[in-house]
Amino acid sequence: MINKIALVGGTHGNETSGIQLIHNWQSSGFSDELASRFSSLDVSLTIANPDALSAHVRFVEEDLNRQFTLEGLDKPSNESTAKEAKLAKQLNQKFGPKGDSGTDLVIDIHNTTSNMGATLIILEADDFHVQLARFVKHNMPEANILLEDEKPYLEHGYLCTMGKRGVMIEVGGQPQGVLREDVYLLTQTMAEVILDFCQAYNTDSLEQYPECEVFRLGENIKFPLNEQGKRTAMIHHALQDNDFAPLIPGAPMFRTFDGKDIEWQEAQETYPHFINEAAYHKLDVAFATATRIML
Amino acid sequence: MINKIALVGGTHGNETSGIQLIHNWQSSGFSDELASRFSSLDVSLTIANPDALSAHVRFVEEDLNRQFTLEGLDKPSNESTAKEAKLAKQLNQKFGPKGDSGTDLVIDIHNTTSNMGATLIILEADDFHVQLARFVKHNMPEANILLEDEKPYLEHGYLCTMGKRGVMIEVGGQPQGVLREDVYLLTQTMAEVILDFCQAYNTDSLEQYPECEVFRLGENIKFPLNEQGKRTAMIHHALQDNDFAPLIPGAPMFRTFDGKDIEWQEAQETYPHFINEAAYHKLDVAFATATRIML
Repeated sequence: MINKIALVGGTHGNETSGIQLIHNWQSSGFSDELASRFSSLDVSLTIANPDALSAHVRFVEEDLNRQFTLEGLDKPSNESTAKEAKLAKQLNQKFGPKGDSGTDLVIDIHNTTSNMGATLIILEADDFHVQLARFVKHNMPEANILLEDEKPYLEHGYLCTMGKRGVMIEVGGQPQGVLREDVYLLTQTMAEVILDFCQAYNTDSLEQYPECEVFRLGENIKFPLNEQGKRTAMIHHALQDNDFAPLIPGAPMFRTFDGKDIEWQEAQETYPHFINEAAYHKLDVAFATATRIML
Repeated sequence: MINKIALVGGTHGNETSGIQLIHNWQSSGFSDELASRFSSLDVSLTIANPDALSAHVRFVEEDLNRQFTLEGLDKPSNESTAKEAKLAKQLNQKFGPKGDSGTDLVIDIHNTTSNMGATLIILEADDFHVQLARFVKHNMPEANILLEDEKPYLEHGYLCTMGKRGVMIEVGGQPQGVLREDVYLLTQTMAEVILDFCQAYNTDSLEQYPECEVFRLGENIKFPLNEQGKRTAMIHHALQDNDFAPLIPGAPMFRTFDGKDIEWQEAQETYPHFINEAAYHKLDVAFATATRIML
């Protein structure tokens, strides 16, 4: 049974769509219709990093969504421990403890400046998550499913890994600090569809849904840099906003500032996403690659 | 003569297109073709707020682009003076002093999360700026001209008012911290066209260009708030991304979180811009209005 569910927004303080959804459901509660749709679920609503919200920033000292490693959570705090590392321990007491969690599912809501539409990020491809992916794709055909299973579930540092299971909602494109109606509505729909799945799972009313397309995370591709570490190119206009579309061998991915194209040179096509995400710019990450599989 | 020109980027540290253009021209210099096009001009290239760039933020303590009032620049600094207020004084020594400036024209480059395309912001409608507006519109028909003459030139707190004359380039939509090729190229084109105008002005080779459409700033429209000061609505999808398109009486401008439309109720159409700009969110500013005039 998936009973205890933590729905979380504001893990990043400038990602407004999840924050607004949590605020709205906190202030008005679920409508009668939603309460009846989710009757088997005990859903808590949480803003993860209120200080980051107040400061209108992604995080105050360190990225909260990288603090939930078992090592990090075990390390004793001292004066020099970052605000978000301490916050992670508090959240883990409430919703974890990670590895032996009292929360059946953590759903952590994000948005991105990349044009990724409504994306469900899953960290495992076990039966539960395969069923979830198929259910979401069936009920929300415009959704994308992204699988990040490059390491075992518990080795991720993501906030959602506090739960027995954890997933992320990632919707874009939306600038940091801005709330777009289209992104807000996609976020709300995906949250409701995931809760619908949990209800169906609990009440044994899941149907057999067809296999669905899933993008499996590959690696990060960096911007080209010169010897001084300065960028020499930008995302090519043909790639910009085309998250999850195939980037085929020979197709342009960067445009240098002196007007030359740099092409994708691998033998296989890839499925870029997180293209030109603001939060990854300081790391010089241009986009992430993926392979397309059926689950 | 418009001889001494200060081209400035990074007045806001997370507005990347102007920053990148300044960096590129600093490192490579003008091409031979540009150097010949701008032969009568002495153009300096400046990053205004390097600390804000390093921190990947709009400003460290206060908005630099509001510090250039005559009163603010005259006030003696003390320990509690904001970083950006001190910086404004330094810049004003170099490029001003405001009101008696050694710089003929300051061109300050910005970008916005609003879908404003390439916008030239002028602060006066005198003969020089009318000629400039017409020249820009003639040579870059996709450009918008925004006139902010609600107060006299010297009463603005904008950085560009250090110069004898000052204008701003404002291009969008681009998330903070992201560099988009389309926005970068529009920024570069508009900077070059303004410099072309100065060259033509100096060499007495301006033609008579036709009257052009200009949007004259009205007022800021705020998001609807409840009694607790929380937002109850978002920008309507019909308004989002439609900067400078007419918003006619009765047309929706907000969508409440419980799904109702809020319409533009004035008797006259208006021309919204800075729609859903991230930097104005903390001020609860939804957009600015404008009237459409011919100059």
